[in-house]
Amino acid sequence: PAPAPSGSTLTNNGATINWHQLKLKHVVDSGDFNRAAVDVVFKEALKMEKVKPHTKESRILDGFIMSTLFYEPSTRTRLSFESAMSRLGGTVLSTESAGEYSSAAKGETLEDTIRTVEGYADCIVIRHFQEGAAARAAAVASIPILNAGDGPGQHPTQALLDLYTIQREIGRLDGIKVGMVGDLANGRTVRSLCMLLSMYSEVQVYFVAPEVVRMREDIKHYLSARGVRWTEVSDLREVAADVDVLYQTRIQRERFQNMDDYAAARGKYIIDKDLMRILSPNAVVLHPLPRVDEITTDVDSDPRAAYFRQARNGLYVRMALLKLCLADGHPEILL
Amino acid sequence: PAPAPSGSTLTNNGATINWHQLKLKHVVDSGDFNRAAVDVVFKEALKMEKVKPHTKESRILDGFIMSTLFYEPSTRTRLSFESAMSRLGGTVLSTESAGEYSSAAKGETLEDTIRTVEGYADCIVIRHFQEGAAARAAAVASIPILNAGDGPGQHPTQALLDLYTIQREIGRLDGIKVGMVGDLANGRTVRSLCMLLSMYSEVQVYFVAPEVVRMREDIKHYLSARGVRWTEVSDLREVAADVDVLYQTRIQRERFQNMDDYAAARGKYIIDKDLMRILSPNAVVLHPLPRVDEITTDVDSDPRAAYFRQARNGLYVRMALLKLCLADGHPEILL
Amino acid sequence: PAPAPSGSTLTNNGATINWHQLKLKHVVDSGDFNRAAVDVVFKEALKMEKVKPHTKESRILDGFIMSTLFYEPSTRTRLSFESAMSRLGGTVLSTESAGEYSSAAKGETLEDTIRTVEGYADCIVIRHFQEGAAARAAAVASIPILNAGDGPGQHPTQALLDLYTIQREIGRLDGIKVGMVGDLANGRTVRSLCMLLSMYSEVQVYFVAPEVVRMREDIKHYLSARGVRWTEVSDLREVAADVDVLYQTRIQRERFQNMDDYAAARGKYIIDKDLMRILSPNAVVLHPLPRVDEITTDVDSDPRAAYFRQARNGLYVRMALLKLCLADGHPEILL
Repeated sequence: PAPAPSGSTLTNNGATINWHQLKLKHVVDSGDFNRAAVDVVFKEALKMEKVKPHTKESRILDGFIMSTLFYEPSTRTRLSFESAMSRLGGTVLSTESAGEYSSAAKGETLEDTIRTVEGYADCIVIRHFQEGAAARAAAVASIPILNAGDGPGQHPTQALLDLYTIQREIGRLDGIKVGMVGDLANGRTVRSLCMLLSMYSEVQVYFVAPEVVRMREDIKHYLSARGVRWTEVSDLREVAADVDVLYQTRIQRERFQNMDDYAAARGKYIIDKDLMRILSPNAVVLHPLPRVDEITTDVDSDPRAAYFRQARNGLYVRMALLKLCLADGHPEILL
Repeated sequence: PAPAPSGSTLTNNGATINWHQLKLKHVVDSGDFNRAAVDVVFKEALKMEKVKPHTKESRILDGFIMSTLFYEPSTRTRLSFESAMSRLGGTVLSTESAGEYSSAAKGETLEDTIRTVEGYADCIVIRHFQEGAAARAAAVASIPILNAGDGPGQHPTQALLDLYTIQREIGRLDGIKVGMVGDLANGRTVRSLCMLLSMYSEVQVYFVAPEVVRMREDIKHYLSARGVRWTEVSDLREVAADVDVLYQTRIQRERFQNMDDYAAARGKYIIDKDLMRILSPNAVVLHPLPRVDEITTDVDSDPRAAYFRQARNGLYVRMALLKLCLADGHPEILL
Repeated sequence: PAPAPSGSTLTNNGATINWHQLKLKHVVDSGDFNRAAVDVVFKEALKMEKVKPHTKESRILDGFIMSTLFYEPSTRTRLSFESAMSRLGGTVLSTESAGEYSSAAKGETLEDTIRTVEGYADCIVIRHFQEGAAARAAAVASIPILNAGDGPGQHPTQALLDLYTIQREIGRLDGIKVGMVGDLANGRTVRSLCMLLSMYSEVQVYFVAPEVVRMREDIKHYLSARGVRWTEVSDLREVAADVDVLYQTRIQRERFQNMDDYAAARGKYIIDKDLMRILSPNAVVLHPLPRVDEITTDVDSDPRAAYFRQARNGLYVRMALLKLCLADGHPEILL
């Protein structure tokens, strides 16, 4: 098989991870998840959709504390994690701008920060601008570390919520056809999603991207080595007619040096009402959000527009991950 | 009747709102409140004054989540709302500086932000620099939106807490005499309070303002059309001798281009110990706070200085509003 | 006796404070603590080490609200206080940057801010850049004020957690030998710790500091007047062989005008594996953190490296202080 893309150590057999015992230690790398582990998370996430206030289930993390350490801003991901913890009765210690964390400014290492904060909390959600930061945190932590994005590296909870949304909307993961659209070169979410999809059989992927932001070779090799069929297509309409899932992404302005290139790339693949007429009645449109104008707002009311449901699924997946992580040593949580 | 000032659609008959069923959907515009609705809120607020820790009432919002989206800073209003939610057992997701909300910076619309955040919370408290922002949020939201101030537009919870304080301190709203002092041109609170007072009978309003910041014509017309007597007076002492309520406001430096004008306006109407000798023994002094020097600190110990009680009333009114808003679909909250 | 150093009014007889009734009003000045008061706090802190989620003890502050007002950043202290409140079931209103508190920016006094915020919370934790700010807050507040550091003044909870750590690690406070190392001129923690240690008998203190940051005369006089033996020593190895506690501190770059002086001071007294060979097997190394390189990381795994346990003790001491403060008027908390 082709080597795993940088930052990933995907294992399909699960021999080295103890998820079959339902015990998550850390959530650092989407490559640590095998099918069995994913199944456990999704089964819990499904239960989480039904948690209501004033119920016993809504209090299972009562007395537990999650600390968020965000070294770069991500309000959406932070709020989603904080909501997840709150929905289960847990408490949050929030740090919106850990980059200005006074100790860090004084020269403290990430490792020392983690060893201090672990005295105050039961788990830590970390977002960092450096690839590998979450793994460094996990190496010294005695409590679970959940990676909320480490620079160009991993964002495993986003990858899981994307996969969960496909499962929920389409009803299966084996045999699905997925069209990935937009900035495939820089989009961390499409790269991670490809890696997770490779665990399933008979998956077909279409890449639809402006020339300057085409999917990179590492992921193509990764998919090929695992028997996933992939095709690069330039006509979005052709793909829309065939897929189960159309995964749109934002063209990131900051990636372009030439604003003409940006304008051309940005306007090239728009999902609008016209395109929705081509899309299968059973297919769905996903987007990791925020969206600018790559999906027109008149699509929002179409039942196949699943991106706001996808955002909400992030809540359920993170509730499931927090429950599983914190259950290690607290078996009463799983009852 | 005169047209309602911009941003208001005050209805006195309540025919178009369902507050008589005790169901608040949103709190966006103080013009949406009629006397019956105000009565419901005040009745709840009165109960809220008695909520103590370790009681059943202090847990009625257990499991509910309020998200604050503040696009401009307002620590006082934010803390008051967060305290209100906490006092009832609810949880808060806090965003102190939504203007730097990473998604907004990437070009996300307010509408998309609301549709995302509503997946994480049961209600949203929004403060925005643009007039009408709260109404835009309410138009797309499936959960209650509470307006914590939208630019030069509305700040309905402040208006309600001012009215509640008059009711609590004076014992009635019909027939009261109110002197409004200071920056009446720019003061959002006095404008909103005038609109709410117009629902009551036999109200008499005195405006006492430096020349450059006199009350605007729209509110004067509004009051006249509703039978509220108003008078502009230049001598604060004359007014103090006659009113039930003296509502002082801060002269806002940032409204003046000429600093001499500012200094003159600022020093013109000060409430001090001398003035308190003229004020009726049963009257009270209100101020929306923060105060600079328009009320001297030696007035604070006078029992008629009600401005810190007024700030605390903001807590009770917001507790009441949160309870009523969240009770829609959760009738157990009202039990 | 020598006059107490500025900011302190240490009373050893306790006649003027009512701690013997277990009622703390405020925690403003470490000089307010006598041995009896310290004993009460430490006894509670020891209990706090055993508080687990899903227990009755973990809910004793259910329904109580702590507001943090931080006028200068201190993520570590803020998180420690917020964790302490959460571990006992209480709720936190957080203000990370009260310096930009909108009301303060508009000219509001600290006193007015306190009188407003006390309407929203049951206690206030304040960090301020001005010495005496916490005492000013306490002078007007009707709820407990906890000083989390006021400029060059006091940081009483840090002093208490340092003392608690010595008690926990060494087993006694009378008769101990403590070596204080590093920036003794500017280190608020070593100054406060000296003052607390002076309440115990037969204490011996060694000061080990680069020339430019030697311990100041006021503390030396203070110790002498209370019968505490102190010695200035230039050889760290000589001290290490004799002490029970080696209290290392960070050399603060911002205190130096000449960077060569800084470099010399910074590298002069490092605790590394070599030094640990000299240290007694029963002694411990403390550090208020954050650490830069004045303790090498290969020391961390030594069981005598107690600085991360010290950080965690901060949690227990603050839990104890919050419980005692809030129990005034709520005796059910102490049951």
